[in-house]
Amino acid sequence: MNNLILKDDERLDDLQLDDLKIIQRASGYKFSTDSVLLANFGRAKQNDLYVDLCSGSGVVAILFSWKNKIKKSFAIELQPALADMAKRSIEYNGLSEKIEVLNQDLHSAHQTLGYESVDVITVNPPYNPVGETSETDEIAIATHELKTTLENIVKESSKLLKFGGKLYMVHRADRLVDILAAMREFKLEPKVLRVVYPNTKKEPNLVLVEAKKGAKMGLKIMSPLILNNLDGTETDELIAIYGRKV
Amino acid sequence: MNNLILKDDERLDDLQLDDLKIIQRASGYKFSTDSVLLANFGRAKQNDLYVDLCSGSGVVAILFSWKNKIKKSFAIELQPALADMAKRSIEYNGLSEKIEVLNQDLHSAHQTLGYESVDVITVNPPYNPVGETSETDEIAIATHELKTTLENIVKESSKLLKFGGKLYMVHRADRLVDILAAMREFKLEPKVLRVVYPNTKKEPNLVLVEAKKGAKMGLKIMSPLILNNLDGTETDELIAIYGRKV
Repeated sequence: MNNLILKDDERLDDLQLDDLKIIQRASGYKFSTDSVLLANFGRAKQNDLYVDLCSGSGVVAILFSWKNKIKKSFAIELQPALADMAKRSIEYNGLSEKIEVLNQDLHSAHQTLGYESVDVITVNPPYNPVGETSETDEIAIATHELKTTLENIVKESSKLLKFGGKLYMVHRADRLVDILAAMREFKLEPKVLRVVYPNTKKEPNLVLVEAKKGAKMGLKIMSPLILNNLDGTETDELIAIYGRKV
Repeated sequence: MNNLILKDDERLDDLQLDDLKIIQRASGYKFSTDSVLLANFGRAKQNDLYVDLCSGSGVVAILFSWKNKIKKSFAIELQPALADMAKRSIEYNGLSEKIEVLNQDLHSAHQTLGYESVDVITVNPPYNPVGETSETDEIAIATHELKTTLENIVKESSKLLKFGGKLYMVHRADRLVDILAAMREFKLEPKVLRVVYPNTKKEPNLVLVEAKKGAKMGLKIMSPLILNNLDGTETDELIAIYGRKV
């Protein structure tokens, strides 16, 4: 077992994939289903250079890197306390050789990593417009467009990605037009869309989008990702995504 | 019963809504589920000025006008034979006072009807790129972008619609990015999206989109429209849309 350093208010949570764990603060920003769906939605090869933007406590970077057996990944997070937690989680999971945390502003990532150097990016951005909060704390920054915006994230992703490189994003369903428009504007053509529905009778909260740099037009919309059956139980697909026995 | 004029190769089909009928040619372009879904997706008020573009045999105009009890509608169709059939179907259904067929190019519709004069538009456009056919006959023109394009339809719709007026469109799922981008470009903000899935395990073929002229950003994605159960039977929602007893 690796060294575990838990600071005040922190706890070790189970990622429900093999024995992976994550450090989170009880009173801080905690990952939710969207991160797990995003990590499951994307694909990468072992030798791809992979970057997770808006990495938070590192959950997407850890899950995605692990699932795709990626040799070199970067997790970029602006907030020092979250970046520090991500680093300790990565160490605890024995992944320090594979995932490097960069505690920096994502807007300068192309200066750190190189222009058009990256094969695959994942991002679970701050979802909510600035106007929806009056707070400025860790949770507010992680969930609202206070320090970056959808458009800036897509713009920076386009700088980072090689021609043919892929961006995987999860976001609020009501931002779909903005997401697709920003991607096309910055030469990341949306290629795959999956709409995430709570059940077959409800409106979706989330969308998953794959964009490819320089690709030709033409979107594949996947089958609906339905999280719950109408009786409230989890669907087989959600159970499979969480890696639990179906 | 009204006067029925059936020409060579024509037949009278049941629209399965009250006693509405439609004239179609056995060997010509025939309406399918997408038209029925579109007519059911949109809403209008009785006193709205309503226009159906790419009207074909008039099925959407007849169903939409009837369901919403609209007093004055126009059905615009380029091809004379289809426009003639639409006119006779409208007469047969006793709707000649309410729906006028204009056998003309849609690109000059704003000259005929007036700039920013229309409250509601429906359109079931030619879905397929020009490259996907080598034919130039009635069916090819009705189903391929030979005489108009998605972008031109949206542009003309924007000319026709009043501020706050609505465009309802059905189209191929793989054109979703193009649809949303064109709408936003021509100031018709996409407000509602419904994805149409053959069943819960399959990729969608169709999308239904509502756009509103001059509206603020923010898309509502509706619950999935699922046509068939996994055992192959029609879902209750599809049965209800077709007006059959559930």
